[in-house]
Amino acid sequence: MREPKLHEALDSLSFLVGTWRGTGRGHYPTIKDFTYEEETRFWHTGRPFLFYMQRTWAPHSGDAMHTEMGYWRPKAEGNIEAVLSHSFGIVEIDEGKIEGRKISLESTSLTSTPTAETVEALARVFEESDDVLTYELRMAFGENELQPHLGAELKRVTGRD
Amino acid sequence: MREPKLHEALDSLSFLVGTWRGTGRGHYPTIKDFTYEEETRFWHTGRPFLFYMQRTWAPHSGDAMHTEMGYWRPKAEGNIEAVLSHSFGIVEIDEGKIEGRKISLESTSLTSTPTAETVEALARVFEESDDVLTYELRMAFGENELQPHLGAELKRVTGRD
Repeated sequence: MREPKLHEALDSLSFLVGTWRGTGRGHYPTIKDFTYEEETRFWHTGRPFLFYMQRTWAPHSGDAMHTEMGYWRPKAEGNIEAVLSHSFGIVEIDEGKIEGRKISLESTSLTSTPTAETVEALARVFEESDDVLTYELRMAFGENELQPHLGAELKRVTGRD
Repeated sequence: MREPKLHEALDSLSFLVGTWRGTGRGHYPTIKDFTYEEETRFWHTGRPFLFYMQRTWAPHSGDAMHTEMGYWRPKAEGNIEAVLSHSFGIVEIDEGKIEGRKISLESTSLTSTPTAETVEALARVFEESDDVLTYELRMAFGENELQPHLGAELKRVTGRD
């Protein structure tokens, strides 16, 4: 396949394209605090959506932890939708907003496989500045209201190619 | 990250790990018949699920067509679950069976973003023999009952590494 041109619908998200790596930390009432290493990639094939893949691993052992992937679909007037699947057995639909280099996504649907845990809600805010991408993720799980769960700071390791 | 060992839960799916390429054809009452080129990859990070990514493109122009990705989660007694997202704006939960080198997956949940079309049901059967992977996908869409939509024959282009 030839190298595709970025679709104009992705102009507002072009700053995301590439590979990002860094460190995050997690906390939640039901678990011990933890840290993780992360790689997140955004890429495209010339169509009006971004491919998104995130994976995390334990800082010392290198053992794989979480992974999620899917597609980010920018729409008119700064709106955005995302369709995601998570390795632990849930799928997610998000709606949100693109405001400059800040993107917010809030789940409108989370569905679990029969063996997976149920997550009530997820909300993410991504911000990019000077080739640093940070995000904060809030989660509602079980009886726990939507509250901070994950945050990470990632640095660009490859550009749009 | 070090090279992970295949998780024992993936033993029954280890024959899938690698990259597969080939040609498919599509038909449905609502559209013209078409053909496509496809690449499908299965990989792992040492945990008890396979990463799955499929993308297709037009045979002559090379223009990207469909793509879907997610995780295949084998369970006890030959059962399997999958969590998938599709670029056109749906997420999918499947349940199915692993029977030797035949894997069947049937959707139990399909959810669309506000701007995406609704798909009523998807059912896939994959079979592998002598480094050839074939699948047939049936779809129920609109008023149309579950019926053949896609089929492809893919050859192994890389192995488990």
